[in-house]
Order: sequence, then C-alpha cells, then structure tokens
Amino acid sequence: MSLIVQKYGGSSVADAQSIKRVAKRIVETRKAGNDVVVAVSAMGDTTDELIDLANEVTPIQAPRELDMLLTAGERISMALLAMAIKAMGYDARSFTGSQAGMITDATHGAARIVDVTPVRLREALDDGAIVIVAGFQGFSRDTKDITTLGRGGSDTTAVALAAALSADVCEIYTDVDGIFTSDPRVVPLARKIDRITSEEMLELAASGAKVLHIRAVEYARRHGVTLHVRSSFSNNEGTIVYDPTSLPEGETMEQPIISGVATDLSEAKITVVGVPDVPGAAAKIFRIVAKTNANVDMIVQNVSAAATGRTDISFTLPKPEGQGALTALRNEQSELGFESLQYDDQIGKLALVGAGMRTNSGVSAKLFEALYDSGINIEMISTSEIRVSVVTRADMVNEAARAVHTAFGLDNEIEAVVYAGTGR
Amino acid sequence: MSLIVQKYGGSSVADAQSIKRVAKRIVETRKAGNDVVVAVSAMGDTTDELIDLANEVTPIQAPRELDMLLTAGERISMALLAMAIKAMGYDARSFTGSQAGMITDATHGAARIVDVTPVRLREALDDGAIVIVAGFQGFSRDTKDITTLGRGGSDTTAVALAAALSADVCEIYTDVDGIFTSDPRVVPLARKIDRITSEEMLELAASGAKVLHIRAVEYARRHGVTLHVRSSFSNNEGTIVYDPTSLPEGETMEQPIISGVATDLSEAKITVVGVPDVPGAAAKIFRIVAKTNANVDMIVQNVSAAATGRTDISFTLPKPEGQGALTALRNEQSELGFESLQYDDQIGKLALVGAGMRTNSGVSAKLFEALYDSGINIEMISTSEIRVSVVTRADMVNEAARAVHTAFGLDNEIEAVVYAGTGR
Repeated sequence: MSLIVQKYGGSSVADAQSIKRVAKRIVETRKAGNDVVVAVSAMGDTTDELIDLANEVTPIQAPRELDMLLTAGERISMALLAMAIKAMGYDARSFTGSQAGMITDATHGAARIVDVTPVRLREALDDGAIVIVAGFQGFSRDTKDITTLGRGGSDTTAVALAAALSADVCEIYTDVDGIFTSDPRVVPLARKIDRITSEEMLELAASGAKVLHIRAVEYARRHGVTLHVRSSFSNNEGTIVYDPTSLPEGETMEQPIISGVATDLSEAKITVVGVPDVPGAAAKIFRIVAKTNANVDMIVQNVSAAATGRTDISFTLPKPEGQGALTALRNEQSELGFESLQYDDQIGKLALVGAGMRTNSGVSAKLFEALYDSGINIEMISTSEIRVSVVTRADMVNEAARAVHTAFGLDNEIEAVVYAGTGR
Repeated sequence: MSLIVQKYGGSSVADAQSIKRVAKRIVETRKAGNDVVVAVSAMGDTTDELIDLANEVTPIQAPRELDMLLTAGERISMALLAMAIKAMGYDARSFTGSQAGMITDATHGAARIVDVTPVRLREALDDGAIVIVAGFQGFSRDTKDITTLGRGGSDTTAVALAAALSADVCEIYTDVDGIFTSDPRVVPLARKIDRITSEEMLELAASGAKVLHIRAVEYARRHGVTLHVRSSFSNNEGTIVYDPTSLPEGETMEQPIISGVATDLSEAKITVVGVPDVPGAAAKIFRIVAKTNANVDMIVQNVSAAATGRTDISFTLPKPEGQGALTALRNEQSELGFESLQYDDQIGKLALVGAGMRTNSGVSAKLFEALYDSGINIEMISTSEIRVSVVTRADMVNEAARAVHTAFGLDNEIEAVVYAGTGR
C-alpha cells in the first residue's frame, strides 16, 4: 500500500460542485489501494474576499489577527471536502494546521515550518480514514498562536506532510496539465515536461514559472520528496519533479539539455550610476538595499572605465520594492558617492533553464544568437550553473521566449490548451 | 477595576461598519477602567450561508465536519473585531473556543460545557489586552475535536466565561433594548423590564421569549452570574437578570407580581384519545415519545370518565418533532391500547410569568377572566410555581397576550420601538 499526499488549490475547490469532483478523485485514489492525505487551499477567491473584508475594517491589520482570519478559509474547504467524502461512504477527517502538527516559527503571514508532528494524522490513517489537512496554516509552539505560511503555502504544506509521513509521492493538483517548457499563454507551442529535476524546477520557479511555489520545491528537494504536478480536471499524467541523486542504483534519466524557458514581467531595474570603483562599494549598496527587505534578483556590474575610476551597478528586484530601495539609496548618496540613480520598470526577464547546460557548451551563444536573429536587444545577462537569464524590453520578452523556445527545439507540434485561474 | 464580559450577536457584527461600531463600544468600556472579555458570534448570516454550502455538497453532513465548518464563522468575526480594536490603539487578542479553554463533551452540534480553563485569557488580561473569544464553540478533551454548543451557544459562551473569570457582569448585546413584558411585535404596549430574577427569566425563555437562550440563563443562575441584556445600538440601560439569593445581606428587591407574558406559536398538540386508565399508561406513552427525542412541553391528562375506564392525554411539542412522535405512538397502538390519535398544529401558547405569584392568590383566576372577557377559549392549562400557561387557537394567541398584558397592568404609555433581526 502506498501513501499518497495530494494538494488541491483554490480553483480545484472553488464551489460545491468542484468539491464533489475532488472528493471523487480522492476516493478513487483510496479505492486503488492507497492511503491518502490531502492538503487543501481555501475555496476560490475566499482568501482575497477575507482580505477585502479586513481592509474594510482597518487598513492596519494586526498580523496575528490577519492569520486568524485567513485560516478560516481552509477550515471551510477542508470540512466540506471531508463531508463530501464521508457522504460517499469513506471515512474522512479534517485537521487544522495545528491539529496536523504543522509547527512553525511565530512570523505571522510568512511563517517557516520548524517541525511536523503528524501524530493525529497517523492515527487517522491507521483507522483507515482519508486525512484532509488545511493547507497554508500552522501554529507556533512558542506563542501557541495560529500562523500562515504565506503565498504558495498550501504547496509547502503538502510537501512537508509528504516528507514527515514518508509518502511515496506528493501530487500537486492544479488547473494546468503540468509544468510546461514555457508559459503556454506566451508560447503557444510549449510542451508539457514529463520529468524534470528539482534543481531545474527551482530555477524555473525562481525565473517566473508560477505553477509550483519555489519554497515547496526547495522543501521537496531538501527532503527528497518526489512531486507529481498534474491537472485536477483530467486523468493525464502530469510532470514528475524528482531528485536525480535519489534514483535507485543504476537507474539514470536522460536529461534534455534545456528544460524550459521562463519569462517574468514583475521586476524593475535600478542602475546606480557612477559608483566609485573601490573595494566594498557594492557591499555598501546592497547592505542598504537589503535593509528595505527588497528581494534583489539579478546583479550586473559593468567593467570600470579606468579613466574615470567609476562604474555602474545594475540590479533587478520586484516592482513593489523599487521605490523603497530607491529612497534608501538616495538618502545615502553622499556616503556612497555615486552620481545618479536610474529606475526602469519596463523590463522583461527571460531565463533558459536546463541541467544539460553543465555538459553542453554553446548554450549561451545559441541563446544570444536567437535573440539577435529576432532583433531583440539584451540589456543584462546573468548565469548560474543550469540557467542563463537575460533582461530585455518588457514588450519584447514574449517574442523573445517564442524565438528561444523554437531555437532550442522545444516546440510542440500542436498548441497547448490554456485554462484560466490559479490556485493558492 | 471591574471585569466585564460582553456578548455581541451576529446582527451586531453583520458587516465591517458594525464591527467598527462594536469595537468602539468595547474600547469605551475599557477606557472607563474595566477589563473586558468579549464573546462574539459569526457575522450576520454567515452561519446560515455555511450551512447552505454544506447542503450543496451533501445532505448528509458528518457532525464533526459540520462543527469544523461552522466554527470558521466566529473565527472571521473575532479576528476582524480584534483588528478593529488594535487599529484604535488598544491591545486586543482573539481566541478560538479551544484556545480559550472552553472544554465540552464530544456531542457535535450540541456540546455541553464540562470545564472552562481560561489560562490564556487571564494572561492576556494581565498584559492589559482586551480579550475576544469565539462564541458558540469549544473542544472536546477526549477526542481533541472542535465542537459547537448549538443554537444560542454564544450567549452560553459569554456566561460561562463570566462564571470562570468571576466577572462582575455579563452584558448580552442584542438588537432590542432588553427583556420586555411581552414581545413588542405582538403587544405594542409592552414595557422594558428593568430587573428580573433568573428564575422568571428561565420561565419566560422556556415559554417562547427569544432574546436570551434558556441554556445561558440556566448557566447564569447555576453560577450566580448577573446578566445585563441591552441594545448594541444605544447606551440605554437594558434588563438586569439577577439571582435574588445572591443579593448582599439586607438588600431586597421589590418584585412585581407579574414580570411578563410570553407567546409561542412553534408547538403542536398531540392528543392520545381513549387511553386505558391504568397505572403506568402515561409512563409508557412518554417513554415512547422520548425515544424520538421529542421535547415534550405541556402535558395534560383529563379526569377519567369512570364509566369508560379510559382517559385522554394531551401534550405539546415543537412542530418539527410532531410527525416522529405520532409515528412512534401509532406503531405501539396495540401495546398501549389507546383508541386514536389527534394532531393539532394550529395552537398558540401563552405563558404568564412572575415570582410574585407565589404569594399572590388569584393570578390564575384573573388570567382566565381576562381571556374569557376577550372571548378566547382555553384548551389546555399548565402551571408551575411562578408561571401559568394556557393553550389557545393559534390565531387568538396574540389578542390573548394583549388582553392579559392589559389586565395585569403591564401596559406602557407609549408603543415600543421594534428592530428587525436577531443574533445567534
């Protein structure tokens, strides 16, 4: 008997009808002889509606109380799902984050999991019950208060449960068929990826692929959890996200050179112009930016013009964090000694990800050529071991993605079907 | 410094605006130098909406899961209320039933409170915080599951907290100005009662007065909690419900002979015709009825007609329970030996309540005269130490209430203002 953890996002449980459909799928998994543990998000737009309600009451929301409020969402969906399963004649029990032993630190709104003690879940499984757990939520052992894991938290809940219960697989149900070589809304010829390493998935997620939350992928990689990302609207196989180091002895997977092309329009670029080219200048700049809690992504420092003894440093960061970083830098201009600041929120980022890059030279060159052939100018370049990222004009990035997708032979013969909506 | 427990029903926290209004009232109580603990119901129609949602998913709802679902309602209202208070610069913390130490048995949907261990509430009060507790909910120490107290549960939560914390008073906020001598929608000249004993309040609640739930009044009487029933829409004094035995030495309250007139149209009458007049016949009948979980209210057995050796036994019970009781009796007809069954759901009940009845003869006679003068026929009579109840035709009971109200000198000079809506 296998133990399967399944995660259903908000769009999969948006209304009573959807909940019944999901219940049926869960029961089918049980009938096939598996133990089943389900992590479920709040129904549809419940979370956003609760946030709207809080905004109506006050714009300044106590974080502890906001977590108390938002956790009502999964409480509703999980109870309804358990009812639906019980009505089908199968035992089911729902558990809140704290009942499930999802222990976190006390950082309301973005709590980190510190321990998972699924004692009650094991008891319920031993009794033959299907276990339903509220995604997104936990509780702090120190303050005894309810916490939430932040956006994407339900994926993390599912992965953490799979790790703690040594599940055979963690199925992440979503409204798309799996992970694609690129966003099908941008690249219509994008193909579903059958298998991808967790390392590549991490790079894709960090580069803008939104199907899986980066934190859940990190957790899965660290704990050797195999993910299966698939659609809750079909029975098609989705995408397996696996750890190649955990494959059985002797078994290897052929890895394609390139796994996918991700695009991201959510970032802005700040350029610090005329920074004195002295040791420690960059460190000072990024210490100041870090204090604003900005999540700096790409950093590029141009070669110093020897004559001036000055250099330009550019970096990208999420647009909402741009003004804070600019203000902080401007306040320290005399201390840092730079000449001026430039802010550009009309940039697009394209990332090419593939574990095969390690052993294949020429990937960057081929990428740059493809962009050049399409007349797309590259403004920044940044590379990791298995990723090349470039920044282009925002209005060019989709065309860039299609060109690169074609150049690396990723195109499918037929166009992908695109569904609307995303889960939490 | 006094400790005041306040309870706000669903209509008092129906939307963001109402929540802010309630927050302001709570803060005013705090500013006046009191410690404040608040029990709050779910917003407006939330509970009914959640029940509708559950019905859409399945008509057969697992009780454990239904409780899990419904408790989401108070979680929302209490978090929003705590946020609103914090936004006004006062410390506030919300607690679920289980966090508040509201320990119940494991009877989902109608749990009984077995213990209250408000450790975290005391800590929060010691820290100077205003405490917000989810009404209506608790948890079972045995099963570790979430429970609900059933309809009227939030009143009971407030009273139980007041008892456990030795509060000076438990204020029950509602959408009317207090307890009235009769329902102002039926008797426009009804007067607000300033003070009433818990014993009388119990009789009034049991007789159909809906402002306070009978269970909360029972709990208050047993634990010596003084209640103050008042409107959340005004600052007027409401009605004090007190235990006369707990008054300070030497202090007595003048008690009016009659406190109020309650009416109730929710019951039906079953008459078991031609029951053999032998010992144990009534016991057998009511044992059978009890097995259907019917809540039998009035019971009247007519004098046996010696010639036939048979008697008629009539009783009233809530209409929804009528068919079950009838079926059960019909199945046992040969065993019980009665002749036939009569069912009448067009009855009205009127109850006259007053502690002064004990020492004043003639109350019943005056009641019957008042009804006779209005041409209203009495079909059943039942009395307790401080109450006389009569059954009339349903369409006569409102007129009966007005006549009796006038006859006992309860009429006000002006008509009462009637608000819409009731809380949970």
